[in-house]
Amino acid sequence: MRRRGMILILSSPSGAGKTTLTRMLLQDKALDLTLSISVTTRPRRSSEVDGVHYHFIGRRQFDLMKSAGDLLESAEVHGACYGTPREPVMKVLAEGRDMLFDIDWQGAEQVREALGEDVVSVFILPPSMKELRARLDRRAEDSAATIEKRLANARREIERWRQYDYVVINDDLQRAYAEVTAIVAAERARGARSAEGVEAFVAELLAG
Amino acid sequence: MRRRGMILILSSPSGAGKTTLTRMLLQDKALDLTLSISVTTRPRRSSEVDGVHYHFIGRRQFDLMKSAGDLLESAEVHGACYGTPREPVMKVLAEGRDMLFDIDWQGAEQVREALGEDVVSVFILPPSMKELRARLDRRAEDSAATIEKRLANARREIERWRQYDYVVINDDLQRAYAEVTAIVAAERARGARSAEGVEAFVAELLAG
Repeated sequence: MRRRGMILILSSPSGAGKTTLTRMLLQDKALDLTLSISVTTRPRRSSEVDGVHYHFIGRRQFDLMKSAGDLLESAEVHGACYGTPREPVMKVLAEGRDMLFDIDWQGAEQVREALGEDVVSVFILPPSMKELRARLDRRAEDSAATIEKRLANARREIERWRQYDYVVINDDLQRAYAEVTAIVAAERARGARSAEGVEAFVAELLAG
Repeated sequence: MRRRGMILILSSPSGAGKTTLTRMLLQDKALDLTLSISVTTRPRRSSEVDGVHYHFIGRRQFDLMKSAGDLLESAEVHGACYGTPREPVMKVLAEGRDMLFDIDWQGAEQVREALGEDVVSVFILPPSMKELRARLDRRAEDSAATIEKRLANARREIERWRQYDYVVINDDLQRAYAEVTAIVAAERARGARSAEGVEAFVAELLAG
């Protein structure tokens, strides 16, 4: 049925499982979710590929995009700039398909302001701070100082859970994933989201 | 996690599959849904059991319950009175558990007015009027005149779909069931619904 596309925002502090959940959502082709690739001015990590994880750009290009209104949201975190290019998002939504956003609470707030009722936001919580620290340690990508900074930032992020439509505790990855896919399925069945399609369907139904 | 109980309302015109979906939801014990048993003044059908399908009561008892404020909602349909006793519902909600309501749009509206944000409503649509008529014919419980009355009523009910949070088209029972269970799982993950529990969880998380 014809329906409006939606933006599914997944936010969580680093290490709470957002990246893994995002990968699982994208691997399930039946879900037909398109990942929004952010631009960032931060250095590429050795595990990252330009155009896949981020578009890595310079500060000047970032500022140009921002001032031209080409970014749906932008933020500065840990001293680096991040932003979401507007055009690819609007294209997917216009097709009645859904976009997946892996952004933090600052970005989520801006996207919600820009696109209102087409936005569905999910906050992923870690089961404990101890587990969060263990996950960051296991990732072995960051220095001890960076991990401390990420943990301090995690605490500030976690306090933002009230801004989100849904809260999922990632104590078990499969259970958390099932909860996120249930949210996608439910939101697609929202009457308001598919009003145009249901309207047409009901008109045909009552005519038949 | 501690959360507020919710009321899941399933509505549909007769024959669209609401009764079957209700049975499937109740058979899945892991879902832990409690069915609200309505009172009614209409005669019991040969396939029905008192206290299971309805509490069959007389008109005088119905009027007494209604005037005492013991009914959460009540309506007159096809010349018979229906109502939902308030007390068992409030008891289940207070336990943080969920109640399933199999009622029509008139009842849904009253329950929504009484219990607001704790109400989640789902409208089940038949795939076509032809299929709806076929299902009513197959049921072979009603006279031809009653079936015509039900079909006319179905058209009026279907026009009410906009009042519902979710719309599910029952063109395939398993798919429709999966959609309803996704709605239950998603609504249980709503931040606002489990605010008290998340609040406590986050407080413990940040203290740890």
